[in-house]
Amino acid sequence: MKVEIYALRHMPYVKKGDDVAAFILKALREQKLELRDGDVVVVTEKIVARAEGREVELSSVTPSREAERLAKVTGKDPRLVQLILEEAKEVLAVGENFIIVETKHGFVCANAGIDQSNVEEGKVKLLPADPDKSAREIKSKLEAATGKKVGVIITDSFGRSFRLGSVGIAIGCAGVIALWDRRGERDLLGRELQVTRVAVADNIASAANLVMGEGSEGIPVAIVRGLSVLGDGSARDLIRPKENDVFRRR
Amino acid sequence: MKVEIYALRHMPYVKKGDDVAAFILKALREQKLELRDGDVVVVTEKIVARAEGREVELSSVTPSREAERLAKVTGKDPRLVQLILEEAKEVLAVGENFIIVETKHGFVCANAGIDQSNVEEGKVKLLPADPDKSAREIKSKLEAATGKKVGVIITDSFGRSFRLGSVGIAIGCAGVIALWDRRGERDLLGRELQVTRVAVADNIASAANLVMGEGSEGIPVAIVRGLSVLGDGSARDLIRPKENDVFRRR
Repeated sequence: MKVEIYALRHMPYVKKGDDVAAFILKALREQKLELRDGDVVVVTEKIVARAEGREVELSSVTPSREAERLAKVTGKDPRLVQLILEEAKEVLAVGENFIIVETKHGFVCANAGIDQSNVEEGKVKLLPADPDKSAREIKSKLEAATGKKVGVIITDSFGRSFRLGSVGIAIGCAGVIALWDRRGERDLLGRELQVTRVAVADNIASAANLVMGEGSEGIPVAIVRGLSVLGDGSARDLIRPKENDVFRRR
Repeated sequence: MKVEIYALRHMPYVKKGDDVAAFILKALREQKLELRDGDVVVVTEKIVARAEGREVELSSVTPSREAERLAKVTGKDPRLVQLILEEAKEVLAVGENFIIVETKHGFVCANAGIDQSNVEEGKVKLLPADPDKSAREIKSKLEAATGKKVGVIITDSFGRSFRLGSVGIAIGCAGVIALWDRRGERDLLGRELQVTRVAVADNIASAANLVMGEGSEGIPVAIVRGLSVLGDGSARDLIRPKENDVFRRR
């Protein structure tokens, strides 16, 4: 078994209103790469969110009193804090220069996933409003144009508790297994498996992260080939319910 | 840029005293795959620990009073709980059928990484005592035999707070960058990067996890080709200091 991960080299800078799927198809042609049945197309949320107009001018934001208070604690811009609070379902932890929240989507991450990298000065960028839907839209356009069955994963880089450094995380899925349930399967010696659910879409996001990068190399799309992971998954499958999370209950 | 991940198909079942590097070299030959400069050889801790004799007969373990108490709370075998406590520096959380600890190595994981899959009945398997050292030993044997410069990562599958499903995690590293520090670099628009440290070795472990699996397919080794990640890293680079972890401080 061999898996291949291709960095898509010729993606133009995506702006509001652009058609991400059309850009991917054009970049694939320039790279002389053809989609195949079973390919997983991994797309950073950054270009999806930009295409969907999720950039916000900070000068247009009026911070609430709570945002002003948290801005003092964290050293962040109160207008950015206001946006973080608007994107959050719950604030989990606050510290110097960070606010860890559960977003409206259910993702636990720093600053509600709002970022300032690769966004023009004075603006910030929110996560896509419904990344599963974004993935479905890109998937159906890619499939309509190529006639191939593919999966699409929208990714972001998240920090983690207990470990340093960011890893790729799946925040939107379409046509791909997100959480692989292996309960009841057996190991080499015929005993029941202990690791029974595998975060396949997160592993794919992390694999793609190896070629995508956030810096000036700016590779926003990767193609992962050679897996058998097409199926019916949602990024919501990967969200641990709060009541089932020992680090949130206490 | 293209990354390839090869599953090593012909690894025999590893037992105590076996030479993992020699087995890898033999399996590479059978697969007609030659190591190249820059390859990263990813090895599951399961075979490393078995080779190092980290299996323990449960019948040889005498549980302490504390182990008996935690066994009642968790529903686990008190002898297994005893081993978990012996492998732990700190118990972080306890619940039905799980004990989350910081291991002596510094890894936060369930049950101190002790597992019962792919281990004979009546036995359990501890994590390698010093996985960085295990990685260094495998690396130097592979390099001596092939004359190529490679990296080695020892992996395990860990569950996570906030998200469901396990992902590949680097618990031992040799000759490879573990944490890529990008502080000071610029994005496409010349602004300073926000995601500044990337857990490269964990992303590689997750990528390899896609072809390795834990079940009856039993693929314990993968070769990751096409990255530029050789360097001087340790799995310890990826451990978030306790005092820097908001989910441990509170």
